[in-house]
Amino acid sequence: MVEPSQVTVHLLIKQFYTVNMSIAIICPEKDTRKWVENLKELQPNLNISVYPDIERPEEIEYAICWKHPRGVFKNFPNLKVIASMGAGVDHITHDPEIPEHVSITRVVDEQLTNDMGTFVLGLVTNKIRNISFHHNNPIWKPISYKKTQEESVGIMGLGILGKSVAETLEKNGFLVSGWSKTHKKIAGVKTHFGEKGLDNFLKETSLLICLLPLTSETENILKKELFAKLPIGSYIINVARGEHLVEHDLLEMLDKDHLSGASLDVFRTEPLPPEHPFWKHSKIQITPHIASVTDPKTAVIQLVENYNRMKHNRELLNKVSLKKGY
Amino acid sequence: MVEPSQVTVHLLIKQFYTVNMSIAIICPEKDTRKWVENLKELQPNLNISVYPDIERPEEIEYAICWKHPRGVFKNFPNLKVIASMGAGVDHITHDPEIPEHVSITRVVDEQLTNDMGTFVLGLVTNKIRNISFHHNNPIWKPISYKKTQEESVGIMGLGILGKSVAETLEKNGFLVSGWSKTHKKIAGVKTHFGEKGLDNFLKETSLLICLLPLTSETENILKKELFAKLPIGSYIINVARGEHLVEHDLLEMLDKDHLSGASLDVFRTEPLPPEHPFWKHSKIQITPHIASVTDPKTAVIQLVENYNRMKHNRELLNKVSLKKGY
Repeated sequence: MVEPSQVTVHLLIKQFYTVNMSIAIICPEKDTRKWVENLKELQPNLNISVYPDIERPEEIEYAICWKHPRGVFKNFPNLKVIASMGAGVDHITHDPEIPEHVSITRVVDEQLTNDMGTFVLGLVTNKIRNISFHHNNPIWKPISYKKTQEESVGIMGLGILGKSVAETLEKNGFLVSGWSKTHKKIAGVKTHFGEKGLDNFLKETSLLICLLPLTSETENILKKELFAKLPIGSYIINVARGEHLVEHDLLEMLDKDHLSGASLDVFRTEPLPPEHPFWKHSKIQITPHIASVTDPKTAVIQLVENYNRMKHNRELLNKVSLKKGY
Repeated sequence: MVEPSQVTVHLLIKQFYTVNMSIAIICPEKDTRKWVENLKELQPNLNISVYPDIERPEEIEYAICWKHPRGVFKNFPNLKVIASMGAGVDHITHDPEIPEHVSITRVVDEQLTNDMGTFVLGLVTNKIRNISFHHNNPIWKPISYKKTQEESVGIMGLGILGKSVAETLEKNGFLVSGWSKTHKKIAGVKTHFGEKGLDNFLKETSLLICLLPLTSETENILKKELFAKLPIGSYIINVARGEHLVEHDLLEMLDKDHLSGASLDVFRTEPLPPEHPFWKHSKIQITPHIASVTDPKTAVIQLVENYNRMKHNRELLNKVSLKKGY
């Protein structure tokens, strides 16, 4: 047997580490088996550990996460990337202990975007055409309805999801406007931006859809002062995050008849506790955070792509700014 | 004063009759004041009588109708046109005493067509995304959902409304097929036709939408034998006419779990009687015939246009064949 040269030894070591530097899935609240299966199917040589069963934390370079336990990343000294399993990253960015040198990515999935569009279209058409009205009112009472072009839908947040929802509603004949932190241009949609643009946006909106990212600036943005600037009888849809909404203010403005109703898909506490007043409120429609659910099958494609990009020091896809929070 | 010539007298008589030959509105079930107002606003010299207050039935040439009393048209010896106040004409064509020489017209209104599209989109998105599920189930239970491209929507009836609904659903990402009596071509939609095409159409459909005209051939078409040809778990939407559906067969197929549910907007008896089993059925969603309601403001434009066409012996718009029933 020929003795291996220095170079060969070095290559063998490198290969050993290339194979063994590993991925951690940190998602204590959900069943992650489908994620592991789909990742392995796409790239069988991946070395995947699922939290809390991580034997060699020093080998973890790439963490795929959803609602991780705060501070957990301190355990991974060689961590390079934290990849959100969904479109949202607030569960990551709100952890003050994220090391600054670690990159953060999110899932941008056309399917996820389409699903959000279909869901919001469902809520909006349901609302303007009184489709669910008779669920709780078994009486024959045709109510005159608004035509699509008579409903002023205003979308807060014009990121990938907000823009797509705006386009979907516009395509279906609704009068659509949008508001975002910085100026955005969307064909067929009247856009406003910044604090100065907010009042005009609200004045012209009768159906408000929240699709903002959750940051320190947008937390509690759906509050009494904002609702008061909407025309009387306006309707609220929140498909972003529960923390955008001041729950007490919504109840107050509904009870005062300033707002006519709300469809809520997201809540400060999920599952929404059975005793929560939202459940039985006649003007609130509840859905259990189902607007768009990441499909592991499609999401793993970009997770693996980004893993390989990280390995080869190439630029990551769908990076998020820790500072901006989106 | 110069004595009028023979010709002048003839012209005066003609003008007298031109002004006085009149329009009857025959719609005992609805308030017709908005229709009269809108017709008068458009053409102030119209002489309009509202049934049953018609003093000179021999002067009626043009009857604007919705659910007229059977046989009423015999009273108008000079009747030339029966104009439906809506898109449907079955309320007219089902009267065996319609004189054959009288023309029948319907309303074809872009707004009406759009409204139907929005409404069906609302029902379909509501169904595939379980939006109303939690109305009657105040428990946090996220159900996995179908993506639009996984839902095979089949539309029966590809007239103006059916075609438009097909296009709306296709545009929003659904897998759409259609069936009609004769061959129709719609971009992006797989079409079937005739009795021979029905079985293949049903086999591939999991969400069936009825938008057929009501004729002797389509009455009771939604019956057990047809439902049995749909895949198990299929869903029914009827936005056409109550008489298309054999009610007992629907209940049987729902109770057997062959069908998963139904959204019904139209019924054999309207208003749907309070004791009707549909009201409380957990798998049936009721709406009170609100899919698309003719707006007098836009509909009168074509009613007046057709009135003037009739006066000048020009071809009428949106004519319907009494024999075919649509």
